[in-house]
Amino acid sequence: MVSEPVKTIERTRIYDVAAAAGVSVATASRALNDTGRMTEQTRERVKQVAAQLGFRPNTMARGLLGKRSFTIGLLTNDTYGRFTLPLMAGVSEALVDRGVSVFLCTIEDDAALAKVHVDALLDKQVDGIIASGRRVDRRLPVDLSNLPVPVVYAFTEGPDDSVTFISDDEQGSREAVQWLVSRGRRRIVHITGPESFASVQVRAQAYRTVVGEQAEIHHGEWSEAWGHEAVARLWSGADTPPDGIFCGNDQIARGVVDALRERGVTVPDDVSVVGFDNWEIVAAATRPPLTSVDMNLRELGREAGLTILALAEGKEVAPGIRRLPCQLVLRQSG
Amino acid sequence: MVSEPVKTIERTRIYDVAAAAGVSVATASRALNDTGRMTEQTRERVKQVAAQLGFRPNTMARGLLGKRSFTIGLLTNDTYGRFTLPLMAGVSEALVDRGVSVFLCTIEDDAALAKVHVDALLDKQVDGIIASGRRVDRRLPVDLSNLPVPVVYAFTEGPDDSVTFISDDEQGSREAVQWLVSRGRRRIVHITGPESFASVQVRAQAYRTVVGEQAEIHHGEWSEAWGHEAVARLWSGADTPPDGIFCGNDQIARGVVDALRERGVTVPDDVSVVGFDNWEIVAAATRPPLTSVDMNLRELGREAGLTILALAEGKEVAPGIRRLPCQLVLRQSG
Repeated sequence: MVSEPVKTIERTRIYDVAAAAGVSVATASRALNDTGRMTEQTRERVKQVAAQLGFRPNTMARGLLGKRSFTIGLLTNDTYGRFTLPLMAGVSEALVDRGVSVFLCTIEDDAALAKVHVDALLDKQVDGIIASGRRVDRRLPVDLSNLPVPVVYAFTEGPDDSVTFISDDEQGSREAVQWLVSRGRRRIVHITGPESFASVQVRAQAYRTVVGEQAEIHHGEWSEAWGHEAVARLWSGADTPPDGIFCGNDQIARGVVDALRERGVTVPDDVSVVGFDNWEIVAAATRPPLTSVDMNLRELGREAGLTILALAEGKEVAPGIRRLPCQLVLRQSG
Repeated sequence: MVSEPVKTIERTRIYDVAAAAGVSVATASRALNDTGRMTEQTRERVKQVAAQLGFRPNTMARGLLGKRSFTIGLLTNDTYGRFTLPLMAGVSEALVDRGVSVFLCTIEDDAALAKVHVDALLDKQVDGIIASGRRVDRRLPVDLSNLPVPVVYAFTEGPDDSVTFISDDEQGSREAVQWLVSRGRRRIVHITGPESFASVQVRAQAYRTVVGEQAEIHHGEWSEAWGHEAVARLWSGADTPPDGIFCGNDQIARGVVDALRERGVTVPDDVSVVGFDNWEIVAAATRPPLTSVDMNLRELGREAGLTILALAEGKEVAPGIRRLPCQLVLRQSG
């Protein structure tokens, strides 16, 4: 399409310039308008290509491309939506009054495909991108550090100089264990997920800080089955079984509560159990319903939304990791 | 901003025309280009406003606005994502090879806000919109019937002349009950959700067709608690309890299976149980894991994606409701 120079000025479109320069339309536009963030090399290449193709930007096109778009892109690899959809609800809630819409774009762990989707968001002239994921200690499979729009990270790992929002799992876990202590529990164990997760380490460390030398941590899968198995182990040994159990997530907690009931151990009279995630579908259906730590993902989304808007409006936002407080939601298990 | 006519042609942008005419940028563009679908009244109004404002479209802007955008909008009110995210995965899967990205935009049940989001999708020049929801028998709170881009409905109700994709719940339910019959079950009951749901009626009718006069249908909530309660009722009466149970969804089935185990009734030896939805988090965690009907939402998404692309490319697609087959996924409960 751009293999031979187009002679008529009107016929050369910014799409052609972008394609020939190997950049997105948004980047091409910003290069020609001397705005946006990119290397000078890229800016010069775009200008040279534009000149070669006889492209002449006009004010109307500049108007079209430079205008605020009132759209925020939300990029995630959490295809199941467990973490990203509550977050998206918060972003929407924060921005809808300003007429800003949020578009969710899901990527698999394939860098080339991820790039296609990021380019699509940029071509749509989103005012900013919020990157999210299914683990706080993993990066998305695409580099977002040199985009022509601001990027904020929420519930995923960003580069060192990024603005990142995560939940304060340390505080949430501490409050959960302190709650068990305040209920008179004296032998509190922690049944949690695989040690390789940063969130597992943070939650375990907070638990350790509260219970001290007595700390007893059992790692396994993020599943109900592991909750059953852990109870079987704890109640079959010679040791006195625990009277308080802090679980790494709600699925483990549900398995624990079911296993205790089947052993004739009453929750919360004999043993108090607290979960993590406050995942309604699991926590509310457990018998008795689970007391659980809520990561306030909606609030995380709200903050990320307001911040991306501030950045899009040219305001300064200091880089760094912001940890937002979790909340202990009391039901009946502990 | 458009309160006084702008004299300089270059200063009037299509955004100004759209705002003054009370239409989206996409509609304004299509009106001026004599393309798209809209009433002649709207088209004329846009042209008049454009003339008043001294707007003169140029080929570059037409190029920008007329070009295929390689983006599909997915609009849903299923904010939890239970049905829409598997569908979105299917849409993405079908279109990613063609370089098409899918943007999900969630709306609450507020018509004014829904309109803001639809306008945002149109302003982004999506090639088409797939409308989806959380119930097949409910419409989204926004009229999509006169948009300048094609619209396909999937897992939500569309207008009479629309292209709509839903799962064939009749076939799925029939196969589930026939499976129970083939396992030698002679007294099969149906425990399901509220009668007001169209899906409940379709599934119940299919069940009735297979079991005939013996049909016994129990309506309640879509919850585990209702599964427990239904079992308590069925096993406390004077009648012989059932040996097969077809449940309206997996949550009910999980409650049924748990309640049976707690009564000492063995699943599937004494009673076979089949669920509906094949919701992994529920079906796989049940003990024993649930045999369940899968609505193939991913496949529904694939078909909707390919169809919206065909429409965007100007191909003819006959209107009507397409029912795609469900699949019985065998685990151990039945």
